Amino acid sequence: MSQGLILFAHGARDPRWAAPFEDTAARIRARQPQLLVRPAYLDFMTPDLAGAVAELVAAGCTRVDVVPMFLGSGGHVRQDLPRLLDELRQRHAGLTLQVHTAIGEMPSVVQAMADAALAATGDAA
Amino acid sequence: MSQGLILFAHGARDPRWAAPFEDTAARIRARQPQLLVRPAYLDFMTPDLAGAVAELVAAGCTRVDVVPMFLGSGGHVRQDLPRLLDELRQRHAGLTLQVHTAIGEMPSVVQAMADAALAATGDAA
Repeated sequence: MSQGLILFAHGARDPRWAAPFEDTAARIRARQPQLLVRPAYLDFMTPDLAGAVAELVAAGCTRVDVVPMFLGSGGHVRQDLPRLLDELRQRHAGLTLQVHTAIGEMPSVVQAMADAALAATGDAA
Repeated sequence: MSQGLILFAHGARDPRWAAPFEDTAARIRARQPQLLVRPAYLDFMTPDLAGAVAELVAAGCTRVDVVPMFLGSGGHVRQDLPRLLDELRQRHAGLTLQVHTAIGEMPSVVQAMADAALAATGDAA
């Protein structure tokens, strides 16, 4: 019985855009190798959310956590994502799909962004 | 001679989307009150980058750092932002406008995202 984690991001036309999500996934795998971590994208990039969930279910996951890799919560997090999750819960009856707070709204991430932005101004001064 | 910092984000239709940027700005102000910190948005929200820069110049800033509040660097960071900065450097001849790495590509932020995503899966288990 495996557990999965999907880092659900917006996607972009430029393949270099995905680097931070791959980097985040690699750091999570390094800390918790038994957790199956997959990036997934709303648009432009693959896999999409349905593809990532199907892959994790095929790998034996009965529980998949979804962390929205969005800084703010607008229409994509508040409307598109719940709609996608509803469809996937119907498709995968035995699966627990748990969505979490958007990454940019987690206080530790906000603090890291504030520290990094402030450090950047100092580095360049 | 004041120094300014602009947190340059994408913008969205939902006003709640801006919360993490306001939160980041507030944390920076708490640590460095003399730094003039302003969010600015590419689209949907105000001020735009030109408006934020004009405000900081009017407040006496001769140097403004711009941190792209984007997780990944695609067209917005690699093409839109440099074009906007070129225009602003022509408009404000005495101003030093320094752009930095996108916030989501800063290693400390990536590590914070990995830690927060992993903690979220544990919280809910």
